[in-house]
Order: sequence, then C-alpha cells, then structure tokens
Amino acid sequence: MNFCSDNTAGAHPKILAALSAANGGSAMPYGNDELTKRVEQKIAKIFERECAVFLVGTGTSANALALAALAPNYGVVYCHPESHVNMDECGAPEFFTGGAKLAGIPGAHGKIAAADLDRAIKAGGIGVVHHSQPAAVSLTQATEAGTVYRPAEIAAIASAAHAHGLMVHMDGARFANALVQVGCTPAEMTWRAGIDALSFGATKNGAFAAEAVVFFDPDRARSFGYRRKRAGHLWSKMRFLAAQLDAYLEGDLWLENARHANRLAAELARGLSAIKAVRLEHPVEANELFVTLPETVIRGLEADGFRFYRWMDDSSTTPRLVTSFETDPAHVAAFIASARRHAAAAA
Amino acid sequence: MNFCSDNTAGAHPKILAALSAANGGSAMPYGNDELTKRVEQKIAKIFERECAVFLVGTGTSANALALAALAPNYGVVYCHPESHVNMDECGAPEFFTGGAKLAGIPGAHGKIAAADLDRAIKAGGIGVVHHSQPAAVSLTQATEAGTVYRPAEIAAIASAAHAHGLMVHMDGARFANALVQVGCTPAEMTWRAGIDALSFGATKNGAFAAEAVVFFDPDRARSFGYRRKRAGHLWSKMRFLAAQLDAYLEGDLWLENARHANRLAAELARGLSAIKAVRLEHPVEANELFVTLPETVIRGLEADGFRFYRWMDDSSTTPRLVTSFETDPAHVAAFIASARRHAAAAA
Amino acid sequence: MNFCSDNTAGAHPKILAALSAANGGSAMPYGNDELTKRVEQKIAKIFERECAVFLVGTGTSANALALAALAPNYGVVYCHPESHVNMDECGAPEFFTGGAKLAGIPGAHGKIAAADLDRAIKAGGIGVVHHSQPAAVSLTQATEAGTVYRPAEIAAIASAAHAHGLMVHMDGARFANALVQVGCTPAEMTWRAGIDALSFGATKNGAFAAEAVVFFDPDRARSFGYRRKRAGHLWSKMRFLAAQLDAYLEGDLWLENARHANRLAAELARGLSAIKAVRLEHPVEANELFVTLPETVIRGLEADGFRFYRWMDDSSTTPRLVTSFETDPAHVAAFIASARRHAAAAA
Amino acid sequence: MNFCSDNTAGAHPKILAALSAANGGSAMPYGNDELTKRVEQKIAKIFERECAVFLVGTGTSANALALAALAPNYGVVYCHPESHVNMDECGAPEFFTGGAKLAGIPGAHGKIAAADLDRAIKAGGIGVVHHSQPAAVSLTQATEAGTVYRPAEIAAIASAAHAHGLMVHMDGARFANALVQVGCTPAEMTWRAGIDALSFGATKNGAFAAEAVVFFDPDRARSFGYRRKRAGHLWSKMRFLAAQLDAYLEGDLWLENARHANRLAAELARGLSAIKAVRLEHPVEANELFVTLPETVIRGLEADGFRFYRWMDDSSTTPRLVTSFETDPAHVAAFIASARRHAAAAA
Repeated sequence: MNFCSDNTAGAHPKILAALSAANGGSAMPYGNDELTKRVEQKIAKIFERECAVFLVGTGTSANALALAALAPNYGVVYCHPESHVNMDECGAPEFFTGGAKLAGIPGAHGKIAAADLDRAIKAGGIGVVHHSQPAAVSLTQATEAGTVYRPAEIAAIASAAHAHGLMVHMDGARFANALVQVGCTPAEMTWRAGIDALSFGATKNGAFAAEAVVFFDPDRARSFGYRRKRAGHLWSKMRFLAAQLDAYLEGDLWLENARHANRLAAELARGLSAIKAVRLEHPVEANELFVTLPETVIRGLEADGFRFYRWMDDSSTTPRLVTSFETDPAHVAAFIASARRHAAAAA
Repeated sequence: MNFCSDNTAGAHPKILAALSAANGGSAMPYGNDELTKRVEQKIAKIFERECAVFLVGTGTSANALALAALAPNYGVVYCHPESHVNMDECGAPEFFTGGAKLAGIPGAHGKIAAADLDRAIKAGGIGVVHHSQPAAVSLTQATEAGTVYRPAEIAAIASAAHAHGLMVHMDGARFANALVQVGCTPAEMTWRAGIDALSFGATKNGAFAAEAVVFFDPDRARSFGYRRKRAGHLWSKMRFLAAQLDAYLEGDLWLENARHANRLAAELARGLSAIKAVRLEHPVEANELFVTLPETVIRGLEADGFRFYRWMDDSSTTPRLVTSFETDPAHVAAFIASARRHAAAAA
Repeated sequence: MNFCSDNTAGAHPKILAALSAANGGSAMPYGNDELTKRVEQKIAKIFERECAVFLVGTGTSANALALAALAPNYGVVYCHPESHVNMDECGAPEFFTGGAKLAGIPGAHGKIAAADLDRAIKAGGIGVVHHSQPAAVSLTQATEAGTVYRPAEIAAIASAAHAHGLMVHMDGARFANALVQVGCTPAEMTWRAGIDALSFGATKNGAFAAEAVVFFDPDRARSFGYRRKRAGHLWSKMRFLAAQLDAYLEGDLWLENARHANRLAAELARGLSAIKAVRLEHPVEANELFVTLPETVIRGLEADGFRFYRWMDDSSTTPRLVTSFETDPAHVAAFIASARRHAAAAA
Repeated sequence: MNFCSDNTAGAHPKILAALSAANGGSAMPYGNDELTKRVEQKIAKIFERECAVFLVGTGTSANALALAALAPNYGVVYCHPESHVNMDECGAPEFFTGGAKLAGIPGAHGKIAAADLDRAIKAGGIGVVHHSQPAAVSLTQATEAGTVYRPAEIAAIASAAHAHGLMVHMDGARFANALVQVGCTPAEMTWRAGIDALSFGATKNGAFAAEAVVFFDPDRARSFGYRRKRAGHLWSKMRFLAAQLDAYLEGDLWLENARHANRLAAELARGLSAIKAVRLEHPVEANELFVTLPETVIRGLEADGFRFYRWMDDSSTTPRLVTSFETDPAHVAAFIASARRHAAAAA
C-alpha cells in the first residue's frame, strides 16, 4: 500500500501492449519512424495548433532542455522555491543552460503570483551587465503542493513575463492531473494562456519513461534537436518512446488515468478531513495530499503497512500522499480507516 | 531488408517479456528497487569483481557521463577521429565535461595504436598551463570500422595512458560483439587489460533503451550519481531499465544475440568477397562491413529493396552493412545473390 | 565629489611608480618573472604560512575561479543573498563552476549567521542525488553592507561548514578595510579562523586592476592554474600585475589606504548621524555607509554636485556612500555641511 | 637578449604616460568613462564604420568571448591546428562556448586555405543532429607561423564560411604586424574582406594588458556585455584599460611599433639566411622567425646569452625568434654575428 509517489506505479497495460506492438520488424532510428511522426501529429491535434514536439525519456531532461532553449547562460529563470526544477533536479537547469540562475518566487500552496513575479523582474536589473538577466519563468502544473493553476492565473503570469521579454515554461509532469481538474482544453491551459514551452509528462501517469517537450512557436525550438542529442536524450530506437505516448494519447487513456488518480486523492482528502486532529496543508486539486497528523497516527499507519514520505524531512509530521492511475481504491479506504482508528486511540 | 544499423532492430522477445514481468505492483523509484540491485550484482559477477554500476537509457549518455567522471574540463580525451564520441554525439563529451577537448589519434581500421597515443600524450604538454591537459583515452570496442581490439592491444594502450596518469574508457556500445569474436572473458577485455570505465551497451544488441556505465574502481564513481541526475538520466521508474538488462544478461542472451549478428556479418563478408569488383575496406570482426562496390551494383541493391547507408556520404560507393540479433539469414543470402547478379550484369 | 564607489578612484601614486619601475627590460611572461615570485613570498609572509597565490586582474574572476576550485558543478555555494557573488557578477560563479547553485542565507547587516548556515546545510540533502550538494560557503569581508565579520564569527561559520565537509571562501575585495577595523592579523582573519581560500583585493584600495587568490592549503589549488588560463585570466606581461601588488604590500601602503578610507567613512557617519531625520541602516565598520535621508535632502546633495547611488534602486531614499584611499577629507566635510543645510531647510 | 616572445617586452613609454595621465581624479567605473568612449570612437574611425567595441585585458579572453558570441555550444569552430585558440589557451574557447568543438584545418605556413575550409564544412553534416554544427571559422592574423593573410585570401575564406552560414573571427593578437606588412587599411583587412569579429591586440605590441573585441555588425554583440562580465573580464577601473588603447592608437604609435618589430625580424631573416646550414621554415612576414640551425649553433647562441624557445619542443633544432616594438637593433646584429661565428666553427 504505497503512497510514496506516482512513480512507484508501473506502466499501464495498454502502454505495455503498445510497446509490444511496436516491436515487429525494423524501423528507422532517432525519430525517423512512423510512430514518432504519428505522436507529433496527435500532440499537435490535442493542442489545436502546429507545434514542435520532441520526445525524451525523463521529466528532468524535458524541463532542463526546454529551459536551455528559452534562457541564455546569463539568464535568470524564475520559479517557485519548492519547484522540481529548483529543488529536485540536482541542478539540471543550471547544467543545461550553462549556468543560468534559478530565482525563487515564494507563494502560497506552491503557486507563484503574477504580481510577485512582476516585482521580481522589475528588480532584476534588465539591461544592467552586473546582473544575470531575467529570461524565463517556469510554472509547475500541477504544482509540487498538489494544487492547480487556473488559465486566468497562468495568463496573468505569462502576461507579466512577456511584458518584459521573458519566455514562459510549464513543467507539466502532472499536466493531465491538472487538466482534468480544471476541465479546460489543453490549448486553454497552455498557449492560449501564454505558455511558450511545455514539458508534457506521461511517466507519472502510466508510461514507462516518456515525456514530450512541446514548443508552441516552432521557431523557438531550432536548437533543440542538437541540444537533445548532445545531452544524450535522443533515443536510437525512438519508436519505443513514441509507442508509449501513442497509446497514452489514444482514446483518452491519459485523461482517464489522471481522473482515477485525482478521484482517489479527493476521496482520501474527504476521508481524512473528517478526522479531528488531521489538517490538510493545501487544497487537494490533483493527486497529492499534504496531511498533518499526530505522530502516533503516522506511526500507526506505518505499522499497518502504509508507505509514504514525511515532508520535507524524516522528523516531519506531515506525510505526503500520492495516488496514481493504478492506486487501488481499497488501499485508500484502508488508509482512511487506519488513520481514523489510530486517531481515535490517541484521543 | 534493412542493413542500415543495429538500431533499426526492435527488442528481443525475452527483454519485452521481462519488461512485462516487471510491471506488477509498486516499486521504489530511482534505482531503489530489487531489480536494479540484481542487475548490479549480475554485472559484478560477469566482470568478476566489485564495481560501481549505473544504468542509463542511451549510449551517448553512458559515454559522456563516463568521460565527465574521468576528465576535468581542462582535460584532453584521446580517441579515434572517427569514433562515436568524436563524430556522432553532437559534442556530448564536450558538454558533459564542461569543455574538455577531444583529440583524434588516427589509426588503420578504426583502431588507435598504443605508440601513437604515447607520442600524442608526450607532445601534449603535461603540466603546462597553456594546454588542455591529457586526461583520458576512449577506445571503441567493437570499433566504428567493425574491427575488434585484442586484450593485448588494449593493455598496451592502457599502459601508455596510465604511465602518464590518464584514465581509460571503453565505449562498449558493441561490447558483446567484440567479446564473442575474441573469445576472452569480460574481465580480460576490460579491467585486467587496464580499462577504468566501460560503457556497457545493450540497446544495439536487443534492448529497447538500456546501457550500463561500469567503473572498476568504485572510487572513481563518487560524483557519478549526481552527474547522472543533473543530466536527466536517472529514470524514475528505474525497474524498467533494470528489467531489460536483467533479461539481457540472463542465460547468455547477450552473447547469443551477438553471435547471431557476428555470424551473419561474417557470412555476408564471405559471400561478397567472392564477387570480383567487391572490396572489403576493413577486416570483418563484429557485425559491421564496409564494402566498396561499383555504383551500378549499389543502385541495383537499392532497387531490390535493400537499405543501407553509403559511408561517409551520399556519393560514396562504400555502403556500410550492419547486422543485428534479429537479422534474417534469408536477407543476408538475398543480399549476396542480388550483389552477385548486379555485378555480373555490370561485368 | 564622487561617493559612488571605491572603484571610481584612480590608482595610488606609489603603485603607478611601481608599474613604471617594472617597465625596464624584458621579463619572462605568464608569471615566470621575479616580481611575481616576490609578491607570492610577500603574501605568504603576511599570512604567516605557505600558501598558493594566483594573481588576476578583477575581483569577479578571483571569486569565480576560487569557487570553481572549491565546488563541483553539482554543488551548492551558500552566501548572503546580497553578496557580490550572488548579485553583481552576472552569474560568474555559475559559469566558472559549470552550473553550481548559489543559495542565499539572509542575515542582518549583510552577514550570515553560523546557525542559519548550519540549518541550511542540514536541510540541503547531503548524499541525496536529487539535490545539488552543499559544497562551499562564501563570506564577504567587509560585507556589502559595510560591516565586518569578527574572527570568532568567521570561525563559527567555518566550523559549521567544515563539520559537513564544505569549503570556506572569503571574498576580500575590501579585505584591508575589514582588517584595519578589526585590528587582528591577516592570519587570524583567514586560515586561523578556518578560511580555505581568499580573494585578496587590491583594486578598490589603490591598484589599477590587481587581485590575488590565496589558497591556504596549496593542494586545493592544483587545478587553479589551468582554470585561470582557460578563463583568460593569466596575464602574459604578468610583471605588471605583480608590480601593483608588490607596491601595495610594501611598507603597509595597503593598510594606510584602508585606514584613510575607513576614517573618512566614520567621519561621514558621525557627521550625518548628528542630523535629525538621518538614519544609518547599518553599523559603519569599513568604507561604506547606507544612509536614509529625506528625498529633498538627497536632491539637495545631488544639486550641490555630490554623486552617489540610491540603494538598491533609483527611487530609493537610501544613498550608499563609499569612501576610498583618495577621498578628500574636504569632500566629506562638504557633504556633511550640505546634508545639514538641506535637512534644516526641510525641517 | 631575449627573443622568446613579444610578450617579454614591457610597455611603450607613451602608454605608460597615458596611464599616468588617466590617473587624476575620479571616473565612473565599468566603461562609463570618457576615455572608454573615446577609444570606441577611435576604433570606429580606424575601421571606417560603426562597430561594437569591448575592451578586455588579455588575448585569450578576447578570442574566447568573441567565439562564444559567434558559435553555439553545439557548434564547430574551424581553425588552423596550430592556432593559439586551439593550442595555447587551455581550452578557453571550449569553456566560453560551453563545449563547442574546435576542428583543425591544416595548411602550409600556418594558414588555412579556403578550399580546405569549404571541404570541411561540406563534410560537417549541417542540419544533422548527430554532429556538432559548423558555426564559425577563426583566422590568426599574423599567423602562428609568422605569415600573413592577404585580403583576397581572407575574402575567399570568409566567402566559403558565409556561404554556409558560418561567422568569421580574426585573432588579431598581431594585427598591427600583419597590417603594416600588407599595407592595406584596417577595413580592407577585416570587414571589407568578410570578417565579422576581430580580436584587436595591443598587449604584444606595446600595451601592458589591453585588447579590444570589435564586432562589425553590432547586432552580433548583444550578449557580449553580459558574457564579458560573467567571465570576470569587465574591469572596474576601466579607464586604465582604455588609456592604454587610447595612446596605442594615437599618432600611429601602434603602426610604428609594428613596423619596428617587423623590420628587425626581416633583418634577422636576411642575416641568418645568408648563413649556409640555416633554413627558414616559413616566409618571414611579421615579427616571428622559425629557423632551423645545427644543434651546435643553437648551443653556441644560448651560451652567448640569447634566449628563445625551441619549437615545438626542447629537443627541436628550430628556434622561434620573436622581435618586438622594443627589440634593440644591436641585439639583432649580435644574434646574426653569433650565429655566423658558430656556424663557421661547426663547418
């Protein structure tokens, strides 16, 4: 009964089947195959416009390669201090950009506010050679706090960024989870709101290892192919990366997977908030919860076989609980029951 | 009938089956799973010693990450001018090392001679701040010319390198092909001959996307985990990378696959050399041939549906022919017959 | 009457004379000259121990090169958020380290507190591959706020750093100003308190363009010569860099220059604090003041011909005032008188 | 009697005087001073067009910064294998570009031939992601062999480069020496022949430490100011860099200095070629000679107190002899006499 992360899940059977189906005969390598082209077209269709699409195997590479295409080495990338790009990639954006700075814009519930971004950019010394230059902003959707930006919020941020010539990146490792929550179209969530480049995640939501970087202005992507290759992220047997995304995007599998994960997260939130002495730290809008519990309850849950991370460190009494496309509803029910029982015992 | 590359092949059914088998239930991410540990142990056993093992998805990342662990940014990495690291990785070694120089040591049939390396190092200005410093040598095994270094040749090169404090890397994208040709043990081919770090390839020989970087002195690998993460090459669902290598190394699958490819390459070589007006450019010791043919024969083969690259450019009359673990012997026979027929017609 | 910065000053006549004296005849380039050796010995003597000394022309290069020798590309360098390395070098430390992260530790009056550093390091995830690794701390002495660390404060910081394996750098662009304020020896201010590498500044205190990077453990400096050269900071006619430092360190010129600047800053502080409606933002311990004044007073001073920067932006009512080795005491008196007059008029 | 290099010379008295003259009063830092503006205007006038001018202290930084503005990190910079950028900068171009490749185009007497460049570019795989992309060519004027490109040769090279979209850089560390030899205008030697960016050297020809990077299309230089700062090459007391160039370019000092050096090199060449058993390796067109001599003659010269480097290594019998603006004609006469005497004794 593992609530550690959505990456402890396996791959969806349909995606495994697609990999198997892609395995017949020979195919040209490095993306010069039919499946890759088909995926590119599917993504263009989903986003309702021409776009430049690049497949890679990991979310960190998607983010870092995208940022390297948007920011020069003397640039500043604004992001939430707790964002994955800033905290959990061991400096990948710094590496890929050649030493750009990531500047944290704090904000409640994992979100950046447009006004704070605007203020930071204005204080950033545009045109002054002594300072790294404001170049891009990176939003995480859904955020690391399990919350979701609405299109209007994104538009406000993008507008602040564009007003000063900055580009806007969205880390969509949990893009599907955000999308089904908001109920808008992929286009409304991205380029119509001002997003320039998207890390479109599939790994956490049912793939083995598959992400796409999407540039809504293909001109911005001119150097991307070289950067991907020189970073070792161009798969030779690319059809196997493409096959995952092809199945992922077929017949709404990606949305169904996200709906399942979100629904169980909501259920968990509902069940736990009914318990006195339990506090939800953030609104539950995707597939993550941050729940403060009495230490004895946490130990009881651990003893009952539930696995999760205490956030942000081992002595914390706020476990993070993550659901995925394959989380068993029975595990959710069992978790709530266990928490209730231990809370009652402690009271 | 595709002879373009061994990466036009798919994955071996046993490797697909392993992926499927690995897909049940949850597993801890980022290599903290059982399969990854098992693969590490298998590799240590195959190489008959403790070693540090890191799994990645592509050969370019394996090479570039290994070189970054062996050479500082002010270093020189010696390699054959036509080696993959120098020619076909869009500068990945330069990127990962932070700007080390790759210096070509030309040599017949894709191989570096120890004496030439020694001469280059001695002329390299060790200790002189004006010059990038000799730091490492990278051998390709099997080479880009389809030839194979013998352990004694490797030992001579490693000895020249070590005498001046340089580290020795082996790009083993086709390690299995070399190994079955020489008939020695993996240990004899590597650390017993002086190799410090190995890119141990599986992708070209039956995996989807799986390579291992092996350091024979684990101390050399202290920074590797950070470098892999910050390059975006740490898979979250690592079990699916490990599962490929687990099956690859089970019951000699890797050696059988390589034997199949090599045997067909040898057969192709035998059949083609019997044709007058055909010239093999290099000894055929692995799964690649470089065959100079009359232009009309090449066009005839193309017209008959055979695919291959002209080497090094489109106007060349030297096709490169590559066999793989799944090359159909009938295709080889058909190729020889077609070449013979067109050659006869041209005579 | 320029109080903008100590770098609006020229060079001290004795340093000019030394340059002229060094100009006779030929000298071996790149530091293989007598003057460079003499400066290295002088610095070793001043710091009372063997050390590795490297001359460069700018403070930014001294800092960035030093940090690149202390922190790997996957490292974190802790520093005050307003420090020069973080704010005013357009990302030089990030460039020279290959993408290390600079993490700000806020603290009153431009200083880091040891306890805050300790907390940050402990939260930094040492050994966890997802996070850039705590690697070094950089102190500015005197600080950007015009304050000075005492040896005991430095020792506490260094002790927190060393306890976790981090190296300690001191940006001593205004080292002399700090030293004469504290009244300790250079050794007490640095290696005896735990400093590993020092940017020893001379430019702001009387040189044309001359700084030294000093490593108290020469082993730490093994790569420095290559890094300096490959960054373009190895002067060919090195004697002219050395000559500046030779004169700077001769007969206490460096300390006299700093005493002059500090004395006038103190005088300015005394004079201004006597004026009601004037507030000093930080203790004045070196050659910089941050003085909050009514807008009309600021405009009056500007109209009277005084030049200074409003800190941190053009609409601020806190001018920064900097004195130097050549600041005219009459200008200081005039400044105070002008401020007093305009303040009286405004009251 | 030092013929080692033109950087064993000091600075010209007029340049020292200019430094002294610039030392009165305060001046705004970082290039916001009058002298810097004046130098920029002088350079624009000399080159007969608007251009973007950036002052730095060393030739290596001038070259590496210029190349970083012209080539992306996935780029290839073509140059002569023995050029300074490739051989003598410890990988500075690789560092500043973030890992571009330097590709050597061999050619007689230190020069690249346009046809060879054209061939290399065509074989460079433009548009193919596997290969670092042809991006720039760097010429050295005068070359490392002491020879000089004529404007027509430069134009042919630039034309080959531009035809494929590459930019053209000239390393003019000895620009003045080349110019007085050819007798054309600075414009004819550079932008009229297709040069995009020039490292305009002064250090070797009479300055302390002063070079200018000149972009003939200012648009190309948009990132340069940030790159210079983040590389630590923006001097705070910039007037002292500017003062050197101001004097250097005043009243043809730069051309007179170069004429003196070239004349003495020619005299040396004339005198030495009259000796049997002496062979000049390259035409003597600037201020460097490469002279093959019997070992006994070399030892005799050394014993007589002449200093020079054996080229390229200590066992070579080809000394490199370099003259400078302050070489004493008597030393040249003495050198010839000594060589003649030892050659006679050996015969």
